[in-house]
Amino acid sequence: MRIPVGISSRHLHLSREHLALLFGPYYELGAQKPLRQPGQYAALETVTLVGSKGQIEGVRVLGPTRASTQVEISRTDAVRLGIKPPVRESGDLKGATDVVIRGPAGEVVARESTILAWRHMHLHTAEAKELGLESGASVSVSVLGPRALTFHNVIVRVNPQFRAEFHIDTDEANACGLINGDAVELSAV
Amino acid sequence: MRIPVGISSRHLHLSREHLALLFGPYYELGAQKPLRQPGQYAALETVTLVGSKGQIEGVRVLGPTRASTQVEISRTDAVRLGIKPPVRESGDLKGATDVVIRGPAGEVVARESTILAWRHMHLHTAEAKELGLESGASVSVSVLGPRALTFHNVIVRVNPQFRAEFHIDTDEANACGLINGDAVELSAV
Repeated sequence: MRIPVGISSRHLHLSREHLALLFGPYYELGAQKPLRQPGQYAALETVTLVGSKGQIEGVRVLGPTRASTQVEISRTDAVRLGIKPPVRESGDLKGATDVVIRGPAGEVVARESTILAWRHMHLHTAEAKELGLESGASVSVSVLGPRALTFHNVIVRVNPQFRAEFHIDTDEANACGLINGDAVELSAV
Repeated sequence: MRIPVGISSRHLHLSREHLALLFGPYYELGAQKPLRQPGQYAALETVTLVGSKGQIEGVRVLGPTRASTQVEISRTDAVRLGIKPPVRESGDLKGATDVVIRGPAGEVVARESTILAWRHMHLHTAEAKELGLESGASVSVSVLGPRALTFHNVIVRVNPQFRAEFHIDTDEANACGLINGDAVELSAV
């Protein structure tokens, strides 16, 4: 089965509370375009991330809002900001790094918000069954070409709401030359 | 054998002609610090790279000068500049990308100068013999940790002037979490 590659640029998910502090009371995100995972969308809104060594403007907010603010950046971004986020699965924010987020209406220190995303694969329940994989499995994915490499520790997440997608960040994509629209195959570990 | 990791940040080697155009006639590079490979040094001088989509300041010149100007950047940098350099071994510049280089005394369009460096390993002749490797061999290198991966297509370069060093760029280092000072082992392919 060919699995499409989804390369995550730096982005963030906001809590209701932080959305109000950054954009104003009762503010609602606007949808710019839907993402491949049903119900998720890139919002019209962007923010600035501020660290001790630099700042990055135009960081895209994804919707809808979540219980906790979660900022996902590349290690290249982290060096630029001067922070050292851990590699974590989405939602696992204990010990995540703090970062300052600046919006048009204000600024917040988002505590335990910032991670480097653990590379993972979304699969629909039927797709997982076809591949003989369960949620939480760890697989390897090989990429060919001059920068051929094998990613290990790819966590599988299975959900009837998901569509097959291999998620890596921009550093990981650049290290092997993948671009959005490419597809990969699972490899024997 | 443990092989130290050398992470290459963006840098460039200048021809005599380009050095003069960028810094002035008869200009000589100053040495800031020696590199691990004997005779090579980071120069005091930096330049600005200019592309259609952006520019990057403070790009370090390495000395001594070479027959041809060679600019080595990460794919992250390439996206920022708006150029698409090929993945190439050092010195193999046919079909390399053009880039504008700006120095204090002038600007040049460096034709066929810019590449993404092909990941490689420097070995002293004695070290290569110990490992049973010849110059030009292709090996794999595995990295452990949450971002565990295996780099394939690592080209071995053997020379009595070299010291063992595994060379990757910042994207490749960030994709697996390596930092300068780390060491790797060769893995079975």
